Amino acid sequence: MKPDDAQLLELSGQRAAGIARTGRLRDANVPAAVLSLEGRLMRLLLGSLGNPPLRLTLWNGESVFTGEGDAVACIRIADRSALLRLFINPELHFGEAYCDGSIEVDGDLVKLLEVIYQGLDLASFRGRLPRLVKSLDRPRANSPSAARDNIHHHYDLGNEFYRLWLDREMLYTCAYFPTPEAPLDQAQVAKMDHVCRKLRLRPGDTVVEAGCGWGSLALHMATQYGARVQAFNISREQIAYARARACAMGADRFVEFIEDDYRNIGGRYDAFVSVGMLEHVGRDYHDELGRVINRCLARDGRGMLHSIGQDQPASLNAWIEKRIFPGAYPPTLREMLAIIEPHKLSVLDVENLRLHYALTLEHWLRRFEAAREQVTGMYDAGFVRSWRLYLAGSLAAFNTGKLQLFQVLFGRAASNDVAWTRAHLYGQRR
Amino acid sequence: MKPDDAQLLELSGQRAAGIARTGRLRDANVPAAVLSLEGRLMRLLLGSLGNPPLRLTLWNGESVFTGEGDAVACIRIADRSALLRLFINPELHFGEAYCDGSIEVDGDLVKLLEVIYQGLDLASFRGRLPRLVKSLDRPRANSPSAARDNIHHHYDLGNEFYRLWLDREMLYTCAYFPTPEAPLDQAQVAKMDHVCRKLRLRPGDTVVEAGCGWGSLALHMATQYGARVQAFNISREQIAYARARACAMGADRFVEFIEDDYRNIGGRYDAFVSVGMLEHVGRDYHDELGRVINRCLARDGRGMLHSIGQDQPASLNAWIEKRIFPGAYPPTLREMLAIIEPHKLSVLDVENLRLHYALTLEHWLRRFEAAREQVTGMYDAGFVRSWRLYLAGSLAAFNTGKLQLFQVLFGRAASNDVAWTRAHLYGQRR
Repeated sequence: MKPDDAQLLELSGQRAAGIARTGRLRDANVPAAVLSLEGRLMRLLLGSLGNPPLRLTLWNGESVFTGEGDAVACIRIADRSALLRLFINPELHFGEAYCDGSIEVDGDLVKLLEVIYQGLDLASFRGRLPRLVKSLDRPRANSPSAARDNIHHHYDLGNEFYRLWLDREMLYTCAYFPTPEAPLDQAQVAKMDHVCRKLRLRPGDTVVEAGCGWGSLALHMATQYGARVQAFNISREQIAYARARACAMGADRFVEFIEDDYRNIGGRYDAFVSVGMLEHVGRDYHDELGRVINRCLARDGRGMLHSIGQDQPASLNAWIEKRIFPGAYPPTLREMLAIIEPHKLSVLDVENLRLHYALTLEHWLRRFEAAREQVTGMYDAGFVRSWRLYLAGSLAAFNTGKLQLFQVLFGRAASNDVAWTRAHLYGQRR
Repeated sequence: MKPDDAQLLELSGQRAAGIARTGRLRDANVPAAVLSLEGRLMRLLLGSLGNPPLRLTLWNGESVFTGEGDAVACIRIADRSALLRLFINPELHFGEAYCDGSIEVDGDLVKLLEVIYQGLDLASFRGRLPRLVKSLDRPRANSPSAARDNIHHHYDLGNEFYRLWLDREMLYTCAYFPTPEAPLDQAQVAKMDHVCRKLRLRPGDTVVEAGCGWGSLALHMATQYGARVQAFNISREQIAYARARACAMGADRFVEFIEDDYRNIGGRYDAFVSVGMLEHVGRDYHDELGRVINRCLARDGRGMLHSIGQDQPASLNAWIEKRIFPGAYPPTLREMLAIIEPHKLSVLDVENLRLHYALTLEHWLRRFEAAREQVTGMYDAGFVRSWRLYLAGSLAAFNTGKLQLFQVLFGRAASNDVAWTRAHLYGQRR
């Protein structure tokens, strides 16, 4: 149910009072007295975002800019309801309004989102939101059945859709670019090699993969490193695709794709690997993941958690959590370590690949835009706008350090079967 | 004041009851009925240590072995008081008794300590100690004046002593061995290069070093990388030595050695580096160190914390804390990250060099033993025994994973001036 303007006005009054108390409002060139109520709301909104170099323009042509230098982009607001919703909860309603077309962006969407992230001191900003809005912050649950729904929401959109803009191998996680100029296809293969080398995979090793996407890493480990892999995933479409690939490649004797939850992993393995699943596990289940890892890792076993992360605990962007990744939470590095610390596992290596994810997203966004017409035909214009915003927002988040990408390599504390240095990661690629 | 045997017997009675309750006592080959009281204490003691493959022998020739396979070493106990003290608090009194000669070790001291660490589940073992002993666990304070005493205790023993067994550059921290066969001198230079490369030092960069030892890293940064360095240390002897070296090398225009506490670091620098000081900071001052780092780091600044660590929070070995490193505490990696997390600093890279520290200690112990007669002449036999035990115990701790060595590299979260990959660390050495 859409709140009416009177309700919205009351909420925005509360928020305006809160912003005024913090005294963060900048003097603008136009005296406040000559601005309309809407103009003042726009100034308060820009002030609460740290006065980024963005112009806000209303349906009636009224326009406000409170930043320094030139505006990097202009946000056109189509009606009063959009303005009020944006004012009450910009984190959620910027996305909602962008997708339903009630705001339009003139200029570079990624740059716009970057200056918002740069200007935003998220913690102090959140502190000023009415409690009503804060209570929505908690991500959805990730019990086994809820996880199935959450994963289905995103990953079962149709393999044809993802094929339009992912790389040849259909890897939907951060690539590893040996140089920034490397093509995406090469960078995704390099990522798989980087992971396999960190894990020091040897022929005959047994590997369990938690969250295997369309199966590329599992197949790479088997065909390029001689590993025997069991790969878990609860996305039906991905598992079906991965199984078909394994059969077509004649690799199904070495790779078993299992449609099941990571919590049901049994057996013992030489290596545990999880690339891009931890974000979907959710904080409430970190401890359980730790127990799964401890249970399944052999005496000299090695493990890797590869995940989007962040420097300080904060909920995922509210719009992303609502529309794109229900239940998702990017852990801090400390939260990742808390998963393994209780189990006498030692961290061997941590690498932050944040800028590699930004570059990966640049490739994806460019390819997505190139396939825009096909995507519109498969879904609709709102879908295209929401995915554009999600990809652009993620790119901006990695570029500005709001999100990180951590690869955490670990082993049994008592095992001395570890790499002497990391030089082996930087030799010739196979 | 030394407790008399009656007091010791009462304490050991409490401990024996505790051990019996946990039911961890193994059946030995000799029926308990034919063992003396002392023999039963020895069996209980070995049981509480997880029945390692060690033989205990008394002054009267009575001998107990509860492990599997062959004994790796034999501990000869000279009198009843030593046995009782060992039984009450083996972690502290093994060292005390070894140093005063009331226990002797036949066999390899390092292997002996390794099997003790391997057998010992420290947490459950600690749980059984009488509260009286547990209360001694907390390390000494590290306020600025206490820190000065703590550091003086160890680092002002005399530069001549350290020169006998350290490398040419007098580096008293973990070396970095490009290959295990590299000589110590080369490995210590390689460590300095490894640190400088991780920090991406460029000519003209300003660096602050917290805890600079005898000054080698500061001088290396200035002479090999063109940096301007301010290096802090509260050890008077080390600072005097470092200043003399800087003058002799003509590097005193580029390196300033400052006899002061890290808490008094002022100014802004392109890089912050601390190698082997964090262990002495103590948990109570971690937050203050974080504030110092945040205060002194420039906008695109990079920083490194290099420290002995451990996988789970636990006090330093009680004997080491009492006799060798008063006030010291090896942090967990999570505790290291908690120092920087509040300050919008991003972790870029973590490397665990545990086995490099084990190898460094192998070199030190071998060189120390070769200089044994000179050391005995400078101090006494008890000093030699305590340093042998400290070096051997540290070697065993790193070899068995009880201790770790973490290098944590970080930068400002908002800075994209970071290395694209880590390949530059593995190119040709200068």
